[in-house]
Amino acid sequence: MKFSARDAEILKLIQTWRRDVRHFKTDAVPEDLLERLRAAMDTAPSVGNARPWRVIRVEDPRLRGEIRVSFETSNDKAATGYETERRAAYRSLKLAGLDAAPVQLAIFTAVDPEAGHSLGRRTMPCTLHQSVAMAIHALWLAARAENLGVGMVSILDPAHMETILTVGPEWEFAAYLCIGWPEFIDDTPLLHRTGWQENARTEWEVR
Amino acid sequence: MKFSARDAEILKLIQTWRRDVRHFKTDAVPEDLLERLRAAMDTAPSVGNARPWRVIRVEDPRLRGEIRVSFETSNDKAATGYETERRAAYRSLKLAGLDAAPVQLAIFTAVDPEAGHSLGRRTMPCTLHQSVAMAIHALWLAARAENLGVGMVSILDPAHMETILTVGPEWEFAAYLCIGWPEFIDDTPLLHRTGWQENARTEWEVR
Repeated sequence: MKFSARDAEILKLIQTWRRDVRHFKTDAVPEDLLERLRAAMDTAPSVGNARPWRVIRVEDPRLRGEIRVSFETSNDKAATGYETERRAAYRSLKLAGLDAAPVQLAIFTAVDPEAGHSLGRRTMPCTLHQSVAMAIHALWLAARAENLGVGMVSILDPAHMETILTVGPEWEFAAYLCIGWPEFIDDTPLLHRTGWQENARTEWEVR
Repeated sequence: MKFSARDAEILKLIQTWRRDVRHFKTDAVPEDLLERLRAAMDTAPSVGNARPWRVIRVEDPRLRGEIRVSFETSNDKAATGYETERRAAYRSLKLAGLDAAPVQLAIFTAVDPEAGHSLGRRTMPCTLHQSVAMAIHALWLAARAENLGVGMVSILDPAHMETILTVGPEWEFAAYLCIGWPEFIDDTPLLHRTGWQENARTEWEVR
């Protein structure tokens, strides 16, 4: 397989236009599209090919309600950690699309998967978490290429999420994803528009 | 920005054909291509736009030598952890391209970056590590689209890497990347070819 300069350019555009989406339409997402997102996760790298990502698609309104309450609690707690001025700025941010996103995924890391025979994990157990993050990123890019929005919610108490979704100690909560059609398209990331944090180049130091 | 079905297909091909490369030609990689890889990392998501990835491009032959010795030590230690039969299989795997890769990057996580004002990190500090993993994945895909190989080495002692590269406690070692032109192109991942670990679909559970 050989890719062209045009292919690289398309990837660059998809990466550049990926956004954390928090404003969703409630329209359903076709199942075949979700199957493509599932398959995209399976392309993520993992040491020893351990594939430690585990996904619960949360449909039950009762569970969704509990997760939303958990988010609100964590969000309130986070807000109180800021000084008055930045707290007001924090409060004005919409930090999750839990209210509307038609598809919601709880992502976990299998902390001791059989697959992979622990290759590469003896020195750095964190590679399992890295793989799961990469699988989320793979899904995210695939969604963007389908013009679908993804928002990653991390203002959540991991232990509480594990309790709500009754998972055992072999799974660790990694992130909660809101997926759906974005309510509006804007190239400016929300945190820039609100002045929270601008971009900065990350230079490579040479040694 | 609206992507076409063809764009999504190209992304899928790039994701599907991404490989962990361990056999490199020693030919140099053009600097403008490396600049595109650097820029790809900058597209990775990060909570609060904290961009916590830090990169040292390791050129000094003395440093490269020390890192290679560190890998050999960790690799020997990992091998002794397996039973005789699997140990022989482990020993037959080529697990790093440290001997030939013309470009080598040590990737770190800034564990308390000022950028982002700790948004989303109060509940889940691991989001910083997730961002760095996603930045590595972003670079990896960009490299694949340029027909360039990347191998991620995690059979390394993080503390020892931090010592060799004399980084302070504000940076945590995340991974070591070998980058260069692959010696051969093969669709079969090395761990499949050697029978270490086959692929398995990751199903989404619905609740």
